[in-house]
Amino acid sequence: MNKQELIRQIKEKQTFLCVGLDTDIRKVPQHLLKEADPIFAFNKAIIAATAPYCVAYKPNLAFYESMGVKGWQSFESTVKYLNENYPNHFIIADAKRGDIGNTSQLYARTFFEEMNIDALTVAPYMGEDSVSPFLQYAGKWVILLALTSNKGSQDFQLTADRDGERLFEKVLRKSQAWGNDENMMYVVGATQGKMFADIRKVVPDHFLLVPGIGAQGGSLEEVCRYGMTKDCGLLVNSSRAIIYADSTEAFATTAAAEAKKVAEQMAFILKQNHNG
Amino acid sequence: MNKQELIRQIKEKQTFLCVGLDTDIRKVPQHLLKEADPIFAFNKAIIAATAPYCVAYKPNLAFYESMGVKGWQSFESTVKYLNENYPNHFIIADAKRGDIGNTSQLYARTFFEEMNIDALTVAPYMGEDSVSPFLQYAGKWVILLALTSNKGSQDFQLTADRDGERLFEKVLRKSQAWGNDENMMYVVGATQGKMFADIRKVVPDHFLLVPGIGAQGGSLEEVCRYGMTKDCGLLVNSSRAIIYADSTEAFATTAAAEAKKVAEQMAFILKQNHNG
Repeated sequence: MNKQELIRQIKEKQTFLCVGLDTDIRKVPQHLLKEADPIFAFNKAIIAATAPYCVAYKPNLAFYESMGVKGWQSFESTVKYLNENYPNHFIIADAKRGDIGNTSQLYARTFFEEMNIDALTVAPYMGEDSVSPFLQYAGKWVILLALTSNKGSQDFQLTADRDGERLFEKVLRKSQAWGNDENMMYVVGATQGKMFADIRKVVPDHFLLVPGIGAQGGSLEEVCRYGMTKDCGLLVNSSRAIIYADSTEAFATTAAAEAKKVAEQMAFILKQNHNG
Repeated sequence: MNKQELIRQIKEKQTFLCVGLDTDIRKVPQHLLKEADPIFAFNKAIIAATAPYCVAYKPNLAFYESMGVKGWQSFESTVKYLNENYPNHFIIADAKRGDIGNTSQLYARTFFEEMNIDALTVAPYMGEDSVSPFLQYAGKWVILLALTSNKGSQDFQLTADRDGERLFEKVLRKSQAWGNDENMMYVVGATQGKMFADIRKVVPDHFLLVPGIGAQGGSLEEVCRYGMTKDCGLLVNSSRAIIYADSTEAFATTAAAEAKKVAEQMAFILKQNHNG
């Protein structure tokens, strides 16, 4: 999905919510455990219930990989299901990959060509040749880690160099020579608050993928105040607060209600920002 | 495998070679393609042929993931085969993972508990809480990316802060508060040459995992001159130069000969350094 189409989806549906499919077998409602693939059964129900309220889905690969071969089957089934039934939803594989060139090419082929995923999160530590192989596919995206939502983001990402440029700013600046706002986004944690203003000084037009509202405690209002652009420019992710809102047989209905609540806040904010 | 045992293996076998199982279906000899699992068949033959000349194996997960569910099966079969038949070989999953705490815990459980892998490569960008969940398992290791072998290593890893400390040095220094030389190693590319002397100033006793000899052009002699400790302190990886040395039916025999060649150089260097 290209940038124009993503913006169109956001404006049409009045939401920029991304639902994180961090599906953990230990948290799937009891009654689904008798299904052949409980993870996929859970995801299908969550997707069907929340699709009207979001523009994107983001399975985090760690949750699937932790189940080995079975987990990969659940992941592939979920992506296939999304491609076949929800072609207007943006699919992000939250993989945080990043390896030397020949290896990154293999990942790119798998995720973009074979699985038709729209975007892949990538770690910047290894630099340009670990990122650029992912930028060779029209309509596909790299979402580069910039300033993450966790406590450890302070360990290295905030280190300033001799000119006062912090590592996350260097990542934002240098990576603009590798791609552009049509094939790159950045991960910025919702917990970073006012830092969004600093981010927008370096990348005024790029989309940002924002995890960390909900369970991690970031504020949607603050993210939008400092991070929203005229084209919205944000995909705000919520995982646990939506998909695990209810562990009974009514889990999907409750997830829909939670997603709707966030989407209504988003519609309100979009209108305030003349994106309504 | 703990540090003492690893050192014992190195001294006994007089080699510190790690064979990289970067198995690419496009490079597997033709005659293996009729096997039910050509990747696993290839790995088994390579392992049986090279085991006397190395102390470690390192499958790079990207190669397996690029094959989807089938690839994960090959990966799991390979690890199981190693555990059952070569319990004295150290197994490294080259995964370059790193995510927020609850996700890293899932990875740790899968790789260390379920698969009985000895070590996992981890990217440092997200800081302490993305790394520490991997450090809770006795006899298991995190191998943190420090100074990688690729060109892109210059993009961020060499950036100096206001006090002149470079990012890779900060990673080495800070991470010593998270673990120790009994549960952490560092990735340092063989192409970094004299930089090994700078690395040893910060981590005099840690093992280093060194990719980049062979196809990437790093020099084994230079790595050892600047990076070897009294306990060796190095696992030097070669992948393509060994496993793809020959694409005929004699591939395993040729791989053994290539591994033997490297191991002989290593034995010579160990003797020079009084590790013989």
